[in-house]
Amino acid sequence: MPSVVRFGVSLEPDLLKRFDKIIKEKGYSNRSEAIRDLIRKALVEEEISQPEKKIVGVLSIVYDHDFSDITHRLLHIQHSQHSKVRSTMHIHLDEKNCLEILVVEGKASEIKSFADRIQSLKGVKYSKINLFVPP
Amino acid sequence: MPSVVRFGVSLEPDLLKRFDKIIKEKGYSNRSEAIRDLIRKALVEEEISQPEKKIVGVLSIVYDHDFSDITHRLLHIQHSQHSKVRSTMHIHLDEKNCLEILVVEGKASEIKSFADRIQSLKGVKYSKINLFVPP
Amino acid sequence: MPSVVRFGVSLEPDLLKRFDKIIKEKGYSNRSEAIRDLIRKALVEEEISQPEKKIVGVLSIVYDHDFSDITHRLLHIQHSQHSKVRSTMHIHLDEKNCLEILVVEGKASEIKSFADRIQSLKGVKYSKINLFVPP
Amino acid sequence: MPSVVRFGVSLEPDLLKRFDKIIKEKGYSNRSEAIRDLIRKALVEEEISQPEKKIVGVLSIVYDHDFSDITHRLLHIQHSQHSKVRSTMHIHLDEKNCLEILVVEGKASEIKSFADRIQSLKGVKYSKINLFVPP
Repeated sequence: MPSVVRFGVSLEPDLLKRFDKIIKEKGYSNRSEAIRDLIRKALVEEEISQPEKKIVGVLSIVYDHDFSDITHRLLHIQHSQHSKVRSTMHIHLDEKNCLEILVVEGKASEIKSFADRIQSLKGVKYSKINLFVPP
Repeated sequence: MPSVVRFGVSLEPDLLKRFDKIIKEKGYSNRSEAIRDLIRKALVEEEISQPEKKIVGVLSIVYDHDFSDITHRLLHIQHSQHSKVRSTMHIHLDEKNCLEILVVEGKASEIKSFADRIQSLKGVKYSKINLFVPP
Repeated sequence: MPSVVRFGVSLEPDLLKRFDKIIKEKGYSNRSEAIRDLIRKALVEEEISQPEKKIVGVLSIVYDHDFSDITHRLLHIQHSQHSKVRSTMHIHLDEKNCLEILVVEGKASEIKSFADRIQSLKGVKYSKINLFVPP
Repeated sequence: MPSVVRFGVSLEPDLLKRFDKIIKEKGYSNRSEAIRDLIRKALVEEEISQPEKKIVGVLSIVYDHDFSDITHRLLHIQHSQHSKVRSTMHIHLDEKNCLEILVVEGKASEIKSFADRIQSLKGVKYSKINLFVPP
């Protein structure tokens, strides 16, 4: 368990009451833990907007594997950028549709343009990316 | 100045350092103030998703005032819901385009469907809404 | 009414059916109108991320007017940047709280840092900004 | 390749020009493809807000595997809800930190509360979820 620094926060009683209610519903065991999560979330939002920042992305796409040569093109793009793709997971959603999850690493600007290229492929139905700054 | 409650938060030193850097850039005078804002933001996000919650919305729309009878239809919708519209502000953006801002009050579900009706009007080019829970 | 260009879009029947259902619920009179709104929204999201782009922002803040010298500081910041602030609207939400709406114009990067300064003021409880690219 | 329906969309020339520029940058081969993606994205946003809708979620979390009994608690929650967890992937980000990706299926309301429980676990540093409606 890492060493921690402790500091005080002051809050209006009504605000604190509403906050305690919501974090209890979400399952937090204490305020510190909930506030740590808010801080980490705020930091990540700020830091992933820096183009040079090294980030990790979880890119999820849904596509129809029967559609033209989509599987070939997806593999081709991934191999051409293989140093960015750390791992992939594949789920057969139903007879036609695949869910593929790519864990990618690199500069924020590169990761975003890689995600754009994948999303714009004909046959890719949805695509969403979550970005993290390695802690 | 309202009375406040004070409590402690513990944080990893590295996380705290990154947080201090970002809140300084944003202009916060101290951590408490920045954390209060994070908490209020989290509360509002949670509370505006409750359909019955009484909320305040700031609806901003851009439209072309020369387009057909758009000004008439906008007024008509607003008057038919006049108890929800608290005030409006109008800006002449350029020769053709208007920015109109409507402050609306009511249940979350009603405010959202009111915003949908306005957005879907032919001639309304953009529309965005910000929702608040009255403190 | 401006001249328009017409082009064809092809869509899977099931997707079209779900789309038609949703745009009807939202009140759109036809698909073109709904698709135009999706396109404008996508363009704005893309364009407001360019720091040099000239944009319009609607900044809404909630604050307690009794809190210290908050009204003075808000006026001071606004006047120091008066060329950016096109107009303001003020609503007395309740005995203590004010909703103030500022229409601001300028480069995307300047508008965002102006909004950060306002949000970080002690006494400002919430703040949200909507950004538009003048059509 | 599925059968498609074709219909016309009319757009202001200037809007179309800006749209063509952006979709070219993103790598789309034609407008239909880009518009299809906008429509799918709008549908998913609408549909995942229906609590009873069956959805698929990609939940990504980052945690410190040395932190107390976090690995045990993560496994315990997942097994208690094993019918919802379709598959997981695990990445060793660095000496301390793990990235774990859970593909979950179920009703929108259940998936969201499952994600809240995971996020609120002490030791989970970040968590983000992407939601899809199976096409």
